[in-house]
Amino acid sequence: MVQLRTSRRGLLALGGAALAGGALAGCTDKATPADPSAGKVPFYGPHQAGIATPAQARLAFATYDLTVDGSVESNRAALRTLLKTWTEAAAAMTDGRAVPGDNDKLSAPPADTGEAYGLPPANLTITFGVGPSLFDGRFGLAARRPAALADLPHLPPANLDPARSDGDLVIQACADDPLVAFHAIRNLARLGRGTVVMRWSQLGFGKATSNGADQETPRNLMGFKDGTRNISGDDTGLMDQHVWVGGETDQPWMRGGSYLVARRIQMRIEGWDRDYLADQQNVIGRYKYSGAPLTGSKEHDEPDFNARNASGEAAIPMDAHIRLAAHENNDGVRILRRGYSFTDGIIPARGELDAGLFFIAYQKDPRTQFVALQRKLGQNDALNEYIQHVGSGLFACPAGLAAPGRYWADELLA
Amino acid sequence: MVQLRTSRRGLLALGGAALAGGALAGCTDKATPADPSAGKVPFYGPHQAGIATPAQARLAFATYDLTVDGSVESNRAALRTLLKTWTEAAAAMTDGRAVPGDNDKLSAPPADTGEAYGLPPANLTITFGVGPSLFDGRFGLAARRPAALADLPHLPPANLDPARSDGDLVIQACADDPLVAFHAIRNLARLGRGTVVMRWSQLGFGKATSNGADQETPRNLMGFKDGTRNISGDDTGLMDQHVWVGGETDQPWMRGGSYLVARRIQMRIEGWDRDYLADQQNVIGRYKYSGAPLTGSKEHDEPDFNARNASGEAAIPMDAHIRLAAHENNDGVRILRRGYSFTDGIIPARGELDAGLFFIAYQKDPRTQFVALQRKLGQNDALNEYIQHVGSGLFACPAGLAAPGRYWADELLA
Repeated sequence: MVQLRTSRRGLLALGGAALAGGALAGCTDKATPADPSAGKVPFYGPHQAGIATPAQARLAFATYDLTVDGSVESNRAALRTLLKTWTEAAAAMTDGRAVPGDNDKLSAPPADTGEAYGLPPANLTITFGVGPSLFDGRFGLAARRPAALADLPHLPPANLDPARSDGDLVIQACADDPLVAFHAIRNLARLGRGTVVMRWSQLGFGKATSNGADQETPRNLMGFKDGTRNISGDDTGLMDQHVWVGGETDQPWMRGGSYLVARRIQMRIEGWDRDYLADQQNVIGRYKYSGAPLTGSKEHDEPDFNARNASGEAAIPMDAHIRLAAHENNDGVRILRRGYSFTDGIIPARGELDAGLFFIAYQKDPRTQFVALQRKLGQNDALNEYIQHVGSGLFACPAGLAAPGRYWADELLA
Repeated sequence: MVQLRTSRRGLLALGGAALAGGALAGCTDKATPADPSAGKVPFYGPHQAGIATPAQARLAFATYDLTVDGSVESNRAALRTLLKTWTEAAAAMTDGRAVPGDNDKLSAPPADTGEAYGLPPANLTITFGVGPSLFDGRFGLAARRPAALADLPHLPPANLDPARSDGDLVIQACADDPLVAFHAIRNLARLGRGTVVMRWSQLGFGKATSNGADQETPRNLMGFKDGTRNISGDDTGLMDQHVWVGGETDQPWMRGGSYLVARRIQMRIEGWDRDYLADQQNVIGRYKYSGAPLTGSKEHDEPDFNARNASGEAAIPMDAHIRLAAHENNDGVRILRRGYSFTDGIIPARGELDAGLFFIAYQKDPRTQFVALQRKLGQNDALNEYIQHVGSGLFACPAGLAAPGRYWADELLA
């Protein structure tokens, strides 16, 4: 299949020529992009892309439920077939190629839906994981469920909508173009028709792609910089310590992987917007404009949690978000966050914006990391007055695939 | 007010210094962006920006209902106050400045919600209009309703949701960054609290902002290039002929303005994706990959509606979308389109993607332009099998404001 080795831009020329009757001249320049590899993130490697990868500007996130209803053996075979197909398609899309298959045959539906033709890879990453529900009786996988994939307990402030929670499988697609990210979750859903249905999806936006925008820490919809003290994906020491599953796991198929926790965090934006600037800053523990901690003057100054102000009170209030979330105050516990803002219209019952933060975190063990941190935040965080968790998901993301021939979760399904 | 004359980036430095206790050094470089005017569209001019302006990459669209419930005089005064405030804020935001007011006072809510601090203007345009409902009894404006603002008739294929249709006022915010566009509709809603509520909103995405993407005609979610034969905003002859209201209007306050028709067009994507490539191309009348008409080889070749294929049939089928929509086949009627793709999760009842095209068109008179065209398309267009209009709005957008001191719809409210 020639298009397997051809970029989306190359396929344009091929398709155009084949279809328009030899009109090669008109399409030639599309086959020679200035830099065909610009903005491409490798699909193969020891870890899945999209975790340590610097956060791209846009997110398309979806979970899928398997609809197979046969014997354990046939269900597992169907899952294996699906994941082979998905892996092959993901490898192609992240490489800037079309979904493999017939794309230029007139008497067939095109294998690729086509909306991303002509666009570069835009740093697309497609990250895959499996949810706790995959380990029920359907696939005979109960004994292979990692202990760390324990169901999340109730963690206030939460009022979870089942229609925006959970799922057998998850895909996190991140790219610097929303169409490229959406194209990935849409085409995987289509390839899985008859085996999976999309359960829910979420779009999000992060750093600026505006001309001339410097890529400083993005602001969330509360107007504060979000992510200043996050783990850097480049810091292999911290990544090994906090994010990548190692030899400690009870399930060897998860070595080199990571656990994804997603929370759809709705912000009570209207209430927040009525608060005084000083109160907003005390809730977060940082200055709104500079992003500096209340004990500092620059964004990346280390917060001084012991400092007192002129009145003798804690300069960073005892219930400030950054105090409660800081690793210094949590026995060194850290998570890798990868959040995106979302705005999904209006909440009909309240006439308020349905907007907030789609929180994604990666970690070695959610029980001792996200759950421990959120339990503490849920009890004391001043921010709780302004947020509510309305969707949730927990997924085990296996290690990366070393090379073509391997497929997602092949060790789990072996 | 110092920040009225200061860019969002300048305000950063000011706010940071004021709040963090003289930490000017840490913030200085933020106050000197490489090119503070890069990507700025003038707010003042003979026509409102956002109509002839080349389509930016992202859309945030919202309609608002007035909640005032007093005498005609007091209602009109409240509307006038609102529109003065909105105009001042829109002028600031499109210039890359914060919403005017107290932004650095600790004992007050910041005037600006803050999420766009530090971002450049990103070519933001904010376009304003009024809906037919504004001309009911509340504001004493019945006699000033333009004849061209006649309620839209039922136009198949439509199944309109009132919760995504109509509104007293409309704001179309377009920018090359989704956060900058959303920030505009959010802050206008906030400034109007007590006078207006947001009725519905829609986000959309258009051309690519990926690194290295050439800005060719964007593709819609059917995978086809959309907008090839659109009017160019630079073509003042066509704009005067088809888009800008002139001396023919019965309402002088609309001279230099335009009428906006919005339709939320849901695509039956799953069905479309099952169609053969040849069928998809016949429905549209163009080749999928090159965008060329079925009688040509390059995207911008003029379609030949008289050409026949080897079997003697019309080369561009009689029910092809581009044939029915072409000005050659509609007595020269044209509209200026400004559509954006949308994806809003899943339609619960069908388990299918809620995705499609948020169609926006500008014109001199919707009765003879959009309504006439859509009536014809609704009867015969092969595309109707795959689309449904599920939201709708009609708005009168007045002329541009010549200079500061004027405010939106001031001639209407005079």
